[in-house]
Amino acid sequence: MTEKLRVAVIGAGRMGADHINRLHHRISGAEVAAVVDIDLARAEAAIKGIPGAVALASAEEALDNGDVNAVLIATPGFLHEDILFKALARDIPILCEKPLTPDAASALTVVQAEAKLGRKRIQVGFMRRFDAEYAALRGIITEGGLGELLVLHHQHRNPDTPAGFTNEMLINDSVVHEFDAIRFFTGEEIASVQVRLGKPTRNAPEGQHDPQHVLIETESGVLADVEIYVNARFGYEVATQASFEDGIVNIGNDGGPYVRTQGRWGGRITPGFEERFGTAYDVEVQAWVDAALRGEIGGPSAWDGYATSACCEAGVEAQKTGAKTAVVLAAKPDLYN
Amino acid sequence: MTEKLRVAVIGAGRMGADHINRLHHRISGAEVAAVVDIDLARAEAAIKGIPGAVALASAEEALDNGDVNAVLIATPGFLHEDILFKALARDIPILCEKPLTPDAASALTVVQAEAKLGRKRIQVGFMRRFDAEYAALRGIITEGGLGELLVLHHQHRNPDTPAGFTNEMLINDSVVHEFDAIRFFTGEEIASVQVRLGKPTRNAPEGQHDPQHVLIETESGVLADVEIYVNARFGYEVATQASFEDGIVNIGNDGGPYVRTQGRWGGRITPGFEERFGTAYDVEVQAWVDAALRGEIGGPSAWDGYATSACCEAGVEAQKTGAKTAVVLAAKPDLYN
Amino acid sequence: MTEKLRVAVIGAGRMGADHINRLHHRISGAEVAAVVDIDLARAEAAIKGIPGAVALASAEEALDNGDVNAVLIATPGFLHEDILFKALARDIPILCEKPLTPDAASALTVVQAEAKLGRKRIQVGFMRRFDAEYAALRGIITEGGLGELLVLHHQHRNPDTPAGFTNEMLINDSVVHEFDAIRFFTGEEIASVQVRLGKPTRNAPEGQHDPQHVLIETESGVLADVEIYVNARFGYEVATQASFEDGIVNIGNDGGPYVRTQGRWGGRITPGFEERFGTAYDVEVQAWVDAALRGEIGGPSAWDGYATSACCEAGVEAQKTGAKTAVVLAAKPDLYN
Amino acid sequence: MTEKLRVAVIGAGRMGADHINRLHHRISGAEVAAVVDIDLARAEAAIKGIPGAVALASAEEALDNGDVNAVLIATPGFLHEDILFKALARDIPILCEKPLTPDAASALTVVQAEAKLGRKRIQVGFMRRFDAEYAALRGIITEGGLGELLVLHHQHRNPDTPAGFTNEMLINDSVVHEFDAIRFFTGEEIASVQVRLGKPTRNAPEGQHDPQHVLIETESGVLADVEIYVNARFGYEVATQASFEDGIVNIGNDGGPYVRTQGRWGGRITPGFEERFGTAYDVEVQAWVDAALRGEIGGPSAWDGYATSACCEAGVEAQKTGAKTAVVLAAKPDLYN
Repeated sequence: MTEKLRVAVIGAGRMGADHINRLHHRISGAEVAAVVDIDLARAEAAIKGIPGAVALASAEEALDNGDVNAVLIATPGFLHEDILFKALARDIPILCEKPLTPDAASALTVVQAEAKLGRKRIQVGFMRRFDAEYAALRGIITEGGLGELLVLHHQHRNPDTPAGFTNEMLINDSVVHEFDAIRFFTGEEIASVQVRLGKPTRNAPEGQHDPQHVLIETESGVLADVEIYVNARFGYEVATQASFEDGIVNIGNDGGPYVRTQGRWGGRITPGFEERFGTAYDVEVQAWVDAALRGEIGGPSAWDGYATSACCEAGVEAQKTGAKTAVVLAAKPDLYN
Repeated sequence: MTEKLRVAVIGAGRMGADHINRLHHRISGAEVAAVVDIDLARAEAAIKGIPGAVALASAEEALDNGDVNAVLIATPGFLHEDILFKALARDIPILCEKPLTPDAASALTVVQAEAKLGRKRIQVGFMRRFDAEYAALRGIITEGGLGELLVLHHQHRNPDTPAGFTNEMLINDSVVHEFDAIRFFTGEEIASVQVRLGKPTRNAPEGQHDPQHVLIETESGVLADVEIYVNARFGYEVATQASFEDGIVNIGNDGGPYVRTQGRWGGRITPGFEERFGTAYDVEVQAWVDAALRGEIGGPSAWDGYATSACCEAGVEAQKTGAKTAVVLAAKPDLYN
Repeated sequence: MTEKLRVAVIGAGRMGADHINRLHHRISGAEVAAVVDIDLARAEAAIKGIPGAVALASAEEALDNGDVNAVLIATPGFLHEDILFKALARDIPILCEKPLTPDAASALTVVQAEAKLGRKRIQVGFMRRFDAEYAALRGIITEGGLGELLVLHHQHRNPDTPAGFTNEMLINDSVVHEFDAIRFFTGEEIASVQVRLGKPTRNAPEGQHDPQHVLIETESGVLADVEIYVNARFGYEVATQASFEDGIVNIGNDGGPYVRTQGRWGGRITPGFEERFGTAYDVEVQAWVDAALRGEIGGPSAWDGYATSACCEAGVEAQKTGAKTAVVLAAKPDLYN
Repeated sequence: MTEKLRVAVIGAGRMGADHINRLHHRISGAEVAAVVDIDLARAEAAIKGIPGAVALASAEEALDNGDVNAVLIATPGFLHEDILFKALARDIPILCEKPLTPDAASALTVVQAEAKLGRKRIQVGFMRRFDAEYAALRGIITEGGLGELLVLHHQHRNPDTPAGFTNEMLINDSVVHEFDAIRFFTGEEIASVQVRLGKPTRNAPEGQHDPQHVLIETESGVLADVEIYVNARFGYEVATQASFEDGIVNIGNDGGPYVRTQGRWGGRITPGFEERFGTAYDVEVQAWVDAALRGEIGGPSAWDGYATSACCEAGVEAQKTGAKTAVVLAAKPDLYN
């Protein structure tokens, strides 16, 4: 197909604006072609500074736009179904924020429509599958080096919740991620769910029971549980501890999977600078590009290059003599002050 | 200026190829316009699959190329000076891998030329400044919440070194990063350097003394030391421990800065999902774009969207009844197997 | 009362022998007066090297022995009840290994007998209450600085189990510690228990279902759960994560309580050398005493004292001069080689 | 010799009082026979509640006392020499707090006197050698599994210093521990010492330069350095990082040695409950003994034993049925409230 994805982003709210910024500033091979919002002013604001992007008031217009060859759906869930059917009709790649649709029945009709089409066109926005630690735990499970996976303990904790966050949303908007994560980790469907309501925090809003303890079983009998605690105050945490036949693995507390097996606890050491500083290189080059596009230069300067050369010369000398060796620098041009 | 950076990458070796891949697949707002290598075949291999890029055998050709408006220099250091002068003459943004030039005298001539030009055009490739933990430590120092910075302990450890890695390279190619890091952290120039040679490892190649202990002082008397140990076998580590008047900070062992102050040890908790999963969102969308450009769809499918909806419905029901609630799914279309 | 406890240890099996060794070598203010075992040879072996201790074949004899003023019960549980009643009749301090008795009904008769006596004479062997981290978590709960305790997640993992370790023993011998810990932490009685049986490990012996997930609720509705996993292979772990209204606390993974609250994760820093090295001082002095009783001296020698003095003199000199200062030592007497 | 050590403690100041308490309450096989202090009132206060102990005003009296068969010296250092000679003359076991004597010359005369005696009678109070982590690092070095030890980085940090703590004391009272630790770890004598004075903290008292960076080399060329920082405010820390040919080991931050080798970071997992709860057992039994000697009983009560039995019965039932099972308790006798 074309060498660039020309994306119509439907919905310019929080997630939509975030994706627009991502597509324009960080994603290679794709461009924002159109932004749709019922509030046209919000769509227009969202395309400011994006050459070649148009603001539209309806998904139809965007999908009829010949310049658009992909769609990212970031509207409230109840609007997804209609847009999904129209986009499937155009047979273009779709990235749809979760939930696919608000209920299983309507979601099934989308599934059946895509199945009828005969090729996958829809990716759902369960981004955790793209998190390095999630991928690493999935890898440990599939490689099988620790034996069978037996138990999964999940913690999903938010500092607080937006106004009007109901008990239902606690499942539909929060635990939904763990439902997908458990399916992703085990490669199995979930067979049953149970919820325990215990002592509630004083910090929960009226009508919301927080925390809750969700008990889950998969087809093969893997036991999982989720402490969903959305007014935990201390910060944000999404973590999992997995019990295997031959070890225990923790993810979600930084530093990559933390493994206990064969009498050892710990993790894998970064093998080299590419792994350690790969992101820094990306950030460095992107920073240089962004500044250059503004006609500027930031970051380490030629003076920094010179000064470190002088240090190296002193260092090599010191290496030979063992003596403390002074580093002498020329006068610093004003340009670098 | 133009809305895209059209970059000539000079040098298609390891770092050059890495930057070409970065510019083409991960960096937004820039494109590879030309790749230069004395070995033209290597340049041609490097531009495979990059529409609009040309392979050239000399930096001159690239800099004379009207389609080029930026240059990334990734040749061996002894070739930098000549290319830098030519690029400065064209007054275009330059990203130059370290070292700026192989010695302080020649580096100074580059500095003076850019100063004469009167505007910064050169960024040097000290990528550590773009690492999140380095930036965080720099932030802690400038914010001053822990009082004055007094001592910096650096460890720079590699599993092993390429053949022919000499004692001089140990300073010029490895410790050079700490020289810049110490200057970056303190905002001061380095005043003196001393090197201690102790018991060497059996794993060091002939003629290389490893490890070495480098002692550094800054203008204001901050004491720094670097254990440079390039055949450490265990893995790769670049870490710093900073002693302040009112606390101690460690970076370089994952999990962000680790601070000890006021009787507490620990770090900052991720405040929200944007911080925790921001990268996952980038990876997710890039994966969707890359697959779409290949005419494919990967990642969570519509079936995943449907199955999690069914879990949510069971969860909300279970929340009300407290009973174990079965999750019932429709037959799975072959498309999703 | 007397200035020394003269203890009769009933049962010279694994726990009994361990307590005998403890009383004789590490506990101050108590001595082993008698060891009772139906296997008299085992009792006699147990008192070897303990001056003034006698080996006996029945608890009666021990309790009739005027030299005995305290009793430690370490027999199998089904023998406890009879010994407890006899010891209560003598009104002496009793340390009884858990379980108090094998079932609630008989345990209640012991409770009623002691209540009738009108003063406490029995301490039960729930040793976790004396673990520094357990005490610290209890302290955090009672101090209330993190608000109300809401949820307790326990992991109880053993590498493997002795032959004949049944499903019942998994509750009676293992989870019993968590039952007491939950009561200790919350200061409440337990209101209900539920057990989930999921996917079992291949490493569990015939007839034992491992792991199991035990769900517990306290009087006030605190939710607790225990992953009891006794063939976990990787090692031994007894850990708890407590969710409060204003923070999360982990214990059981060394380093003291790990707290997350107010956007920070971490722990308390050892305030001084007494806390850091208090145990080392105890071990040091005990080692000196034990060696002296054997007519020997171990540990740091006078030579060590001399050599470090020489280092200090060089150090103070170096402090003044800033120069590298040699440490010169006299010839080392053979005694110290 | 006798079956109990009857110890004369010389000096009833801070360390002396601490050792008296230790010998009386925590050390088995030794008793305080005499306490000596030039301030007799302080000696008398120190023996309060210690049956059979006498307070004396001179070391001579204590050493002439036939009831005394061992001596612990805890006076200021300048008084050690005279007492050491008298105690050597009596040929009894001596535990002498560091320093052995205030200077190398006098320490050497003590060494020579003991060597003349022909048997070791003196142990010097370098208690770090008895710390579990120090012993573990020494073990790793001697076992040789990580190859040769090459570099040792020490941090010695105190929150603050007592009034009148001079630059000399910073070496003689603080760094002296690292001098011994480096000798203990390497099994070598120290060959040279150098001190770097950098940027001082505002928190140091007049006339004291803090922090200091002490550079040390051993006979075989092992490089060591110590950051001695005695007004570090944040807390107390004594830590070491050792670089080996095949790995890196950290001690001093709890949790036992932290090892990096072969691409892994981490530590050893507690193998069983004896290792995890051994100290808790000691504390438990000592607590029972101490309470019993006061005529009391503390700790888990018979009621705790009963209540946990009831939980176990409910648990075993729940295990069979899978249902939530209530725990029913009898009325609680007042004795347990």
